[in-house]
Amino acid sequence: MESQLKVERNIQVEAIKQSPTMSREVEIVERKGIGHPDSVADGIAESVSRALSKYYLKQYGRILHHNTDQVEVVGGQADPKFKGGNVLDPTYILLSGRATASVGNERIPVKSLAIKSAKDYLREHFPDLDIDSDVMIDSRIGNGSVDLRGLYDTRKFKANDTSFGVGFAPFTDTETLVKLTEKYINGDLKKSLPAIGYDIKVMGFRKGRTINLTVAAAYVDKYVKDPSEYYSIKDELVSKIKDNAVKYTDEDVQVFVNTGDVQSDSVYYLTVTGLSMENGDDGSVGRGNRVNGIITPYRPMSMEAAAGKNPVTHVGKLYNVLSNQIADKVVKEEGGDIKEVLVRIVSQIGRPVDEPHVASLQLIYEDNVDPSKHKNNIRAIADDKLAHIDQLTQMFVDGKADVF
Amino acid sequence: MESQLKVERNIQVEAIKQSPTMSREVEIVERKGIGHPDSVADGIAESVSRALSKYYLKQYGRILHHNTDQVEVVGGQADPKFKGGNVLDPTYILLSGRATASVGNERIPVKSLAIKSAKDYLREHFPDLDIDSDVMIDSRIGNGSVDLRGLYDTRKFKANDTSFGVGFAPFTDTETLVKLTEKYINGDLKKSLPAIGYDIKVMGFRKGRTINLTVAAAYVDKYVKDPSEYYSIKDELVSKIKDNAVKYTDEDVQVFVNTGDVQSDSVYYLTVTGLSMENGDDGSVGRGNRVNGIITPYRPMSMEAAAGKNPVTHVGKLYNVLSNQIADKVVKEEGGDIKEVLVRIVSQIGRPVDEPHVASLQLIYEDNVDPSKHKNNIRAIADDKLAHIDQLTQMFVDGKADVF
Amino acid sequence: MESQLKVERNIQVEAIKQSPTMSREVEIVERKGIGHPDSVADGIAESVSRALSKYYLKQYGRILHHNTDQVEVVGGQADPKFKGGNVLDPTYILLSGRATASVGNERIPVKSLAIKSAKDYLREHFPDLDIDSDVMIDSRIGNGSVDLRGLYDTRKFKANDTSFGVGFAPFTDTETLVKLTEKYINGDLKKSLPAIGYDIKVMGFRKGRTINLTVAAAYVDKYVKDPSEYYSIKDELVSKIKDNAVKYTDEDVQVFVNTGDVQSDSVYYLTVTGLSMENGDDGSVGRGNRVNGIITPYRPMSMEAAAGKNPVTHVGKLYNVLSNQIADKVVKEEGGDIKEVLVRIVSQIGRPVDEPHVASLQLIYEDNVDPSKHKNNIRAIADDKLAHIDQLTQMFVDGKADVF
Amino acid sequence: MESQLKVERNIQVEAIKQSPTMSREVEIVERKGIGHPDSVADGIAESVSRALSKYYLKQYGRILHHNTDQVEVVGGQADPKFKGGNVLDPTYILLSGRATASVGNERIPVKSLAIKSAKDYLREHFPDLDIDSDVMIDSRIGNGSVDLRGLYDTRKFKANDTSFGVGFAPFTDTETLVKLTEKYINGDLKKSLPAIGYDIKVMGFRKGRTINLTVAAAYVDKYVKDPSEYYSIKDELVSKIKDNAVKYTDEDVQVFVNTGDVQSDSVYYLTVTGLSMENGDDGSVGRGNRVNGIITPYRPMSMEAAAGKNPVTHVGKLYNVLSNQIADKVVKEEGGDIKEVLVRIVSQIGRPVDEPHVASLQLIYEDNVDPSKHKNNIRAIADDKLAHIDQLTQMFVDGKADVF
Repeated sequence: MESQLKVERNIQVEAIKQSPTMSREVEIVERKGIGHPDSVADGIAESVSRALSKYYLKQYGRILHHNTDQVEVVGGQADPKFKGGNVLDPTYILLSGRATASVGNERIPVKSLAIKSAKDYLREHFPDLDIDSDVMIDSRIGNGSVDLRGLYDTRKFKANDTSFGVGFAPFTDTETLVKLTEKYINGDLKKSLPAIGYDIKVMGFRKGRTINLTVAAAYVDKYVKDPSEYYSIKDELVSKIKDNAVKYTDEDVQVFVNTGDVQSDSVYYLTVTGLSMENGDDGSVGRGNRVNGIITPYRPMSMEAAAGKNPVTHVGKLYNVLSNQIADKVVKEEGGDIKEVLVRIVSQIGRPVDEPHVASLQLIYEDNVDPSKHKNNIRAIADDKLAHIDQLTQMFVDGKADVF
Repeated sequence: MESQLKVERNIQVEAIKQSPTMSREVEIVERKGIGHPDSVADGIAESVSRALSKYYLKQYGRILHHNTDQVEVVGGQADPKFKGGNVLDPTYILLSGRATASVGNERIPVKSLAIKSAKDYLREHFPDLDIDSDVMIDSRIGNGSVDLRGLYDTRKFKANDTSFGVGFAPFTDTETLVKLTEKYINGDLKKSLPAIGYDIKVMGFRKGRTINLTVAAAYVDKYVKDPSEYYSIKDELVSKIKDNAVKYTDEDVQVFVNTGDVQSDSVYYLTVTGLSMENGDDGSVGRGNRVNGIITPYRPMSMEAAAGKNPVTHVGKLYNVLSNQIADKVVKEEGGDIKEVLVRIVSQIGRPVDEPHVASLQLIYEDNVDPSKHKNNIRAIADDKLAHIDQLTQMFVDGKADVF
Repeated sequence: MESQLKVERNIQVEAIKQSPTMSREVEIVERKGIGHPDSVADGIAESVSRALSKYYLKQYGRILHHNTDQVEVVGGQADPKFKGGNVLDPTYILLSGRATASVGNERIPVKSLAIKSAKDYLREHFPDLDIDSDVMIDSRIGNGSVDLRGLYDTRKFKANDTSFGVGFAPFTDTETLVKLTEKYINGDLKKSLPAIGYDIKVMGFRKGRTINLTVAAAYVDKYVKDPSEYYSIKDELVSKIKDNAVKYTDEDVQVFVNTGDVQSDSVYYLTVTGLSMENGDDGSVGRGNRVNGIITPYRPMSMEAAAGKNPVTHVGKLYNVLSNQIADKVVKEEGGDIKEVLVRIVSQIGRPVDEPHVASLQLIYEDNVDPSKHKNNIRAIADDKLAHIDQLTQMFVDGKADVF
Repeated sequence: MESQLKVERNIQVEAIKQSPTMSREVEIVERKGIGHPDSVADGIAESVSRALSKYYLKQYGRILHHNTDQVEVVGGQADPKFKGGNVLDPTYILLSGRATASVGNERIPVKSLAIKSAKDYLREHFPDLDIDSDVMIDSRIGNGSVDLRGLYDTRKFKANDTSFGVGFAPFTDTETLVKLTEKYINGDLKKSLPAIGYDIKVMGFRKGRTINLTVAAAYVDKYVKDPSEYYSIKDELVSKIKDNAVKYTDEDVQVFVNTGDVQSDSVYYLTVTGLSMENGDDGSVGRGNRVNGIITPYRPMSMEAAAGKNPVTHVGKLYNVLSNQIADKVVKEEGGDIKEVLVRIVSQIGRPVDEPHVASLQLIYEDNVDPSKHKNNIRAIADDKLAHIDQLTQMFVDGKADVF
């Protein structure tokens, strides 16, 4: 994209007066873990887009039009039991969206690639799920509409829509804690506690200086022999989450796990596969985490469903991730002077993706900081990120940029 | 719910210092009209919930557990033409979610009611859609999980989840304009311009005191005979939108319609049915408008998909709508002293729905206003709304509370 | 097809020595009535083919390639009750097969036509079925394979396959009785007995000179107020079937209706819609009646599924119906000298449909008849029918040639 | 079944005068090989029934009610090429039918078992099919109707329907040749000719003493590098089929392979997976081979779809296989005196399966044979087979009795 060097991008940097999120009395943050049905939908959608992108790149040297951001997870039925139960009805997963299925006379195996990549994704991330018996994957992916594809067939990539992205930095302690607690449970902790499944939901509620972490964690039934073991695992889980939490915050952290359990009624959060979708929980793309991995109703958010969107011209996907990257870099480079930065990038249909209608950065500085000292630097960070937005495309293809 | 009179609800009212939304430099607001695929999904999901609720009420005197908030609209294929084209492949609409399908030995016609209400909804709102040939409706609605239903089977309704709702008031001019422009196009304007379809998307972008309204409006092909008529209708549409806009704002309003049209390439926004889903546009529940009818990335929002959720215990649905109702009432009753109010209500799983974990109201007052003068009144408004939350349930059943 | 005048068709006429079917000790004949799930599948398949054929003829002056002979009826669930019950889960009906969906740049609304004609068919034939709530119709009709279509694109129609057709005449009394009993019940009798539904199965078992007619007849629940009325209707039905039977045979006819009923266990054959598919009975194309309307395991039969096959080149469809037409005409014209005629026509892929590989007619003559007297006439009948096989195509399109 | 010792079964043995099939002028026989879409449907249906039967036996000591005889194979799309092409759209396979899904409070993993056994079946028989990318398997298997299940819940198994079975022996040379040619191609021959796929259709047409074998054999594209190799493989295939044929007949055998090939138009029978369902060919249960493995329009046949039917009470399945077993044994034991035997067994709903309404055996003896010499023996063979019909059930469960 050499011709863009001289572009004067419309980047606005302004200081605002506002109390930063972390100083407010109340804060709520949520993360739907990788095994939550909405995240399963997101994960599949993105894996399908990546598989298609790779195929297009290999065959045609460029990523052709597609948006596979529609995945519906229809929960199955299961009969979990201590020591191991059964999946009764498989979860039904419908892939839809659309993709370029032919180039001239050559035809592209869109649906075969799609269902293959969906299964590969599930197999890789959820080893207690039996792909042969626990899920049914269907595809109704269609061909895109003609005008959008026309728009796409140009060398200089143009925005597909009038849309926007939102990002902020830094994370509050609550945000960090919520996100990393789920990653810890679904990561290191699994080795020592195989009974903990993949559908982990973490809700953080901060009131003043106390953070309540409420964790809903599906157990894998075959690794738990009875209620007594269930509760001892729960104790261990609470204790490990607390130990892990002190790495990220000085606040007082309270941890609650599976608060819906009722021993007297034999109500436990048991599953066969570690996934609640096995028993009636549905999910779909774009209803879970934002691209920064969390849901923050006390912060501005975009409604955009990024997972599965094409990584070349879909501004909803690109700008949301880029906004967060810019925000992160601003905080990192401009150090302690900045309390909070909020980035919004607005596209206009038909404009090149690296030349948004406007990129606006709002900064909450520490007291006594002179904003003018930072303005040019901050502007340069945003400008540079926009100029190299094609690198972001490659990160999506390589699976190096998270979208949920 | 007589016993609630003595409940001391946890309602917090605080004044905050912050520049109100309308005074900021930039603002973006979007509304996906009733015919947008995401709104179609929302509308069907809610109509299914209403039909089930009515059946449950009639047969059992109470609304039984259900969440039909999963609808996937898989776009079809169409061949629109001036003077009238054809739908080629019908849009496929998958209903999922779950509902109580039996009470003792009695069985409930869940799926039959569901597909019937979906068709009734489409027939009522989209007269240019032929239900027999343009859509295929499928249902994979299942039965809910046992523990949630157990929770439900109590007289005093308890929250189904740890969740939250967000609301604000008043609308900025941009917000009002975006919402009412779509309602105007899909309402009064239709009588004089039958060529304008149902899939109307309005994007408002305010910079300073100029509001750009970008409208994407599907045409119904059979009412347009050629490009010339297409453009003359577009002119008329622009002019009428402008005329309508002056009722709601004093700002400078610019109107753009179907900016993707390219006459030289014969690219027009023509459809057979007035709905873009006929040709490859997919939709699903919860990805479109928030319960106040708009998408506001410059405001706090909830990610909750309200449409189709059960109207009795689903706090995500109840609290989002209630938050907006409280905010509206506060602004209305406390008059000119309040610039902006932001309401958030947080539930805790297992608590009665009328006793949230916390309801917090943040107020931006006009300068020189003494907050203490309003505090009790505001608290009373919130308390009263919570005490009568069952009225909201009835409004949902009657279709009197919008959810998208 | 003027060039066919000079064709010397390979028609073989031979007399055989064999006891005719009606003189054998035992005979079994079955008819699945129009509302049997297999017949529902057949009826829909054929109606889709007719709708496509008409569209092709109107737009292109000829019938383009299609075979819509794949319909799967997946039974629903219902809760029938005296005075009227409910359909709980709609019957799911999947259309598949393939059809020409584009001609050059023009696209053909195959799927829209298909689901529309399926609904029209159901609406017309089963007035107690509510199309909006009792069925879900889905289509996965695809495009045909290239080579078959190539073969098709010639003016002189050529056989699509190496296949064959079988026909015979005359019907035995058992055959006539079985077929006409169902037509009577689903015809004239309905006016006086609206409680009798559409799923009528008639089994005829002849031993010597006694014919047992076993009839399974679904009742429509809303027209029956209690068991007593159920049984009085059954008595009336038995009596009317007997009265009707004497028109067609001099044999002794025994009639049994709904032999599975067990009053002590409240087991009745009640349905909401008059169709057993409402409650778990599945059906598919080609598993029911042969093209002559009956199933005759004591006679040669073709396995061909005729319903839904294209009426131009599909020899399995054409030759089966034609074989029966030839057999009928031979019996009619050659009068009392012939006890039984059996016709088989064998195609060869690539040969014109009016020039089969072989048409063989086997005749069982009355004693003392000289076959040579009839041979030329019989040959001429077959030759004429083959020469005018295009008339059969038109009969299929007009719905004047039954296929099940 | 000890009480059956004293049963006097209604078995009728009669000699008839008729020319045996092999002495007639013309004969047609067809076999759809294991990879034909109809056979794929049959094979899956039967494997699902076997998997359920085994589960029921293991858990409950008896086979519970089920009929999984509804499988719809909806052909995909593929782009075969010499040296290897791609499957584009996976074949969609819908399982339906019904099965007992709960016993008291215990629930049975019907759908999970079903899709697992379907995949296992495909994997085992079609190694060139990639289960992950080339097929999508869906299940809409439901619960059976109450009355049929009631009937089933008795110790002494009773017929589920008024139905019948038909069988004959011996096979004519044409019949033997058609059946064994397919088994040879899909068996031994594969080792030396991996390019030959699984969808093999063999049509035998005998005229006088010449048997024409027309074979349609799908090639697996990756094993064929160009048209020249395609044709040399075809030559080899023709030659091997001929060499194999002489083992089974003294008649003159002509062999034709893939007669639809047109080199000048590049029309070859190439596939990616060895299965024509990959490219638009649909299939369903019961439309292919009869239980003896062939289709014989010159012989009496049953329309029954045996594959997937429950192996305990479904007389359509049991009696068809038993009729053939009885016929085979009669021919084997009674040696050269019998030219042909035809067996028909008729059930009556509610009667024990081992006590049919009538079992009739018709025999064509060699000239000068005294039928009375054989009658008692033949009757005893049939009686014994009926008395031990439960062994047949076990053979189905073990996969030792073919049904297509």
